[in-house]
Amino acid sequence: MPTIPGQLTPSPRLLLGPGPSDAHPRVLTAMTTPLLGHLDPQFLELMNETQEMIRTVYQTKNKMTFPISATGTAGMETCLVNLLEPGDKAVICAKGYFGNRMIDIAGRTGAEVTTLTVPWGQVFDLNVIRETLQKVRPRVLGIVHAETSTGAHQPIEELGKLCHEFNTLLVVDAVTSVGCTPVEVDAWELDAVFTCSQKGLGCPPGLSPITFSERAMDVVRNRKIKCRSWYFDLSLISTYWGGDRAYHHTGPISMVYALREGLRVVLEEGLETRFARHVRNHHALKAGLEAIGLTYTADPAHQLPQLNAVRIPAGIDDVACRKKLLNDFGIEIGGGLGDFKGVAWRIGLMGYNSKPSSVLLVLAAMEQVLKSAGAAIEPGRGVAAAEGVYAQKV
Amino acid sequence: MPTIPGQLTPSPRLLLGPGPSDAHPRVLTAMTTPLLGHLDPQFLELMNETQEMIRTVYQTKNKMTFPISATGTAGMETCLVNLLEPGDKAVICAKGYFGNRMIDIAGRTGAEVTTLTVPWGQVFDLNVIRETLQKVRPRVLGIVHAETSTGAHQPIEELGKLCHEFNTLLVVDAVTSVGCTPVEVDAWELDAVFTCSQKGLGCPPGLSPITFSERAMDVVRNRKIKCRSWYFDLSLISTYWGGDRAYHHTGPISMVYALREGLRVVLEEGLETRFARHVRNHHALKAGLEAIGLTYTADPAHQLPQLNAVRIPAGIDDVACRKKLLNDFGIEIGGGLGDFKGVAWRIGLMGYNSKPSSVLLVLAAMEQVLKSAGAAIEPGRGVAAAEGVYAQKV
Repeated sequence: MPTIPGQLTPSPRLLLGPGPSDAHPRVLTAMTTPLLGHLDPQFLELMNETQEMIRTVYQTKNKMTFPISATGTAGMETCLVNLLEPGDKAVICAKGYFGNRMIDIAGRTGAEVTTLTVPWGQVFDLNVIRETLQKVRPRVLGIVHAETSTGAHQPIEELGKLCHEFNTLLVVDAVTSVGCTPVEVDAWELDAVFTCSQKGLGCPPGLSPITFSERAMDVVRNRKIKCRSWYFDLSLISTYWGGDRAYHHTGPISMVYALREGLRVVLEEGLETRFARHVRNHHALKAGLEAIGLTYTADPAHQLPQLNAVRIPAGIDDVACRKKLLNDFGIEIGGGLGDFKGVAWRIGLMGYNSKPSSVLLVLAAMEQVLKSAGAAIEPGRGVAAAEGVYAQKV
Repeated sequence: MPTIPGQLTPSPRLLLGPGPSDAHPRVLTAMTTPLLGHLDPQFLELMNETQEMIRTVYQTKNKMTFPISATGTAGMETCLVNLLEPGDKAVICAKGYFGNRMIDIAGRTGAEVTTLTVPWGQVFDLNVIRETLQKVRPRVLGIVHAETSTGAHQPIEELGKLCHEFNTLLVVDAVTSVGCTPVEVDAWELDAVFTCSQKGLGCPPGLSPITFSERAMDVVRNRKIKCRSWYFDLSLISTYWGGDRAYHHTGPISMVYALREGLRVVLEEGLETRFARHVRNHHALKAGLEAIGLTYTADPAHQLPQLNAVRIPAGIDDVACRKKLLNDFGIEIGGGLGDFKGVAWRIGLMGYNSKPSSVLLVLAAMEQVLKSAGAAIEPGRGVAAAEGVYAQKV
C-alpha cells in the first residue's frame, strides 16, 4: 500500500513577495464551480467575456487577446517563438533577471540576438535604443516593463512609435505591471504583450494573458516556417481562442473561471482607482521602509509601486530573517534573484494585497525581525511613517 | 465604462465526453485553499507528496516525475522537444488524431520523422513496429496508448523491451489511460510518458503529469544543443521540480492543490479497484449502447473501457442530437475528431464519472434523443441491458 499524504492544510500566509500574491477570495470561490466542457456553448461565452475584459485591462482592441494555458513565462515564449524565425534579428534590452530570460528564449528561436544592458536597478534611455535600432534594424525588440528582480519601471510610452520607425515589432513583458500600473497597448503601440494571472489580477498562477497587434499577427501569418512550438503556435491556438472555437488543446476551465472572476473584480474597482491605490500603498510602505533605514535598489525616478526591492542591511542574515517573517508572522517576502541574491529583499504590494493592512503588518513585522537580528531599529518608527502617509488627504 | 459580465453561473453538466470529465468534488474544494508561495517550504513538501503519488499511479521509481504546468499536449511537446534534436530520427505510430498530433510536434523539433499508420480504430502489431525499428533505428518511437479519437487501446506491455533492443526510447501518450487502465512505466520499460489532469485523475484540465526514465534523462543531459523550448526544457525545470527547488517558473499553486487531492482520491480507492470499476461500467454501457443498435468504431479486441466511440446511425443529425443531450439532460458527449467528425460519438466514463449513475442516465437520455430523431428505439432497452450487467455478480 502506498502512503497517502494527509488532508491539505497549509498555514495561512500573506504573500508579499514578487508573486504569487494572494488570490482574491471571490476568485478562490469561483474555482469551486463545477466544470463545463471546453467546447460547451456556455464556456465559449465565458471565453468571449474573459477576452473582452483582458482587452479592457490592456486598453486594446486587438482581436488576438486571450490567456495562454500556462504561466507567465509561457507568454514570453509565445510572443518570441511566434514572431521570430531562424536568422531573424532581435534586440533584447536586459536590465535584470527577466531581461536575461528573454535573451535565452529569443536565442532558442534561431534568431540572431543583440543584447542591450544597463546596470540592475536602472532603466533604458530611448536614445540608446534608437541608436541600436538604427544599426541592427531588428524584426523584434524585447523589453521588460516592470523588472521584478530590481523594482525598476521602464518608460515605454514612446517606445512603440520609435520601434515602428524602424519597422520593428515591440514585445513587452508586462508580467508585473498589468493590474498594478497603466499598460496602454493601443495608445503606446505595443505589438505583443504578455502578463500573468497571479500578481495585479489577483488570481492563482497558471495563465498568461497575451495580446498581439494586427501588425504582429501579419508577421505570424506570413512566417516562412512553422513555429518551433506546437503548444504556443498562435496560428493553431487562434482556431480555438481566435474565432472558430475549434479544438486545439483542452482549455484549463477552472483557471479561466478564476481569471474571469479576477478581471470582474479589477473592472468593478476601475483601472484608475486601482492604479492610484497601488501608488498610495507604495508611498506608505516606502516611507516606512526608509524610516527603518532600508534603501531601494531601483533608480528613484523609476520605482515600481507594486514591487519594492530594498537592500538587505549589512550584517543581517537574509534567509534567517525571511524565515522568521514566514514562521512568526505568516508573511512571505521575496529574496533576491540572480545578481541580487542575498543582496535584496522584494516586497510586493500587488492586486488584492496592495492595501493598508498589508503595509502596516509587514512594517511592524520587519521592525521586530530586524531588531531581533541586531539592527538598530526603534520599534514603531516604520509603522508611524506609513500611518503618516495614510493620514494625508488624497 | 466597460461592460462587466455577471456572476459565474454555468448550468450543471455531466461531462461524458473525451475529457474534461467532472472533477471530484473534493478536488474543487481543495482549490479554494488560500495560496502558498511557490518556494514556501510547505509548498515544497506538497510538491514532494504530489510527485510521490504520481510515481505510484505511473508505477515507477523515476526521479524525474512531476506535472508540467500546462495541459496534456504540453506533456507531449515536453517529451518530444527534450528527446529529439535536429537531424535525429523518430518513428511515430499514428492510428488516430493524437498520433497525427505527435507527428506534427516531432517534426517541429527538426527531427526526421518516419510515420507508421494503421486505419483509425485499429492498433499496431508489434512485428510491424519491429521491422520499422530495424530499418530506421530511430532515437525515439512515439505511440498513443489510449487513442481518444477512436477508443482503441494499443498494447504496449512488450513495446519498451522491443524499442530497447534497437537503442530506441519509447515515448507514450497516456493522456486517456492513466487513472482508468493500467500504465506500468517501470515494468513495461516506458521511457517518457505524459498524461493530463482532467480524465482518469478527476481534476480540472491544466496540468500534465510526466515521467522520464533514467535512460531518457541521459539523452536529455547529453544534448548537443539547447532544447527548442525554454518553458518545457527539462534541464531547467528539473532545478525546480527535480531537486534544488530553485525558481524556474511560478508553479500553478491551485492546480497542484487540485492534483494532489485528485491523486489522494485515486490512491484511497486503489489502482486495481479503480481499473476494475472502469471495466465494469464500460461493460454496462456497451451492453446498453449495443442494445439500442449502436456499434463501436474500435477493434473489439482493443476497446478502451474509458472511451466508448460509436458510429452515429445513418440519417441521425450529429450536432442536433448532442445539443439535445446537453440542453435537455445537461449531458455532454463528444463529437468525432478529424476523420471521425460527423461519423462518431465519443462517450467517456473516466475517473469520477465512471459510475452506474452516469451509465444509466446517458443511456436513458440517448434512447430519448435517438427516438425523437427518428431512430427505431424501444424505450428502456439500453437501460435494461446495462442493468443486466450490473445485476451480475462481480
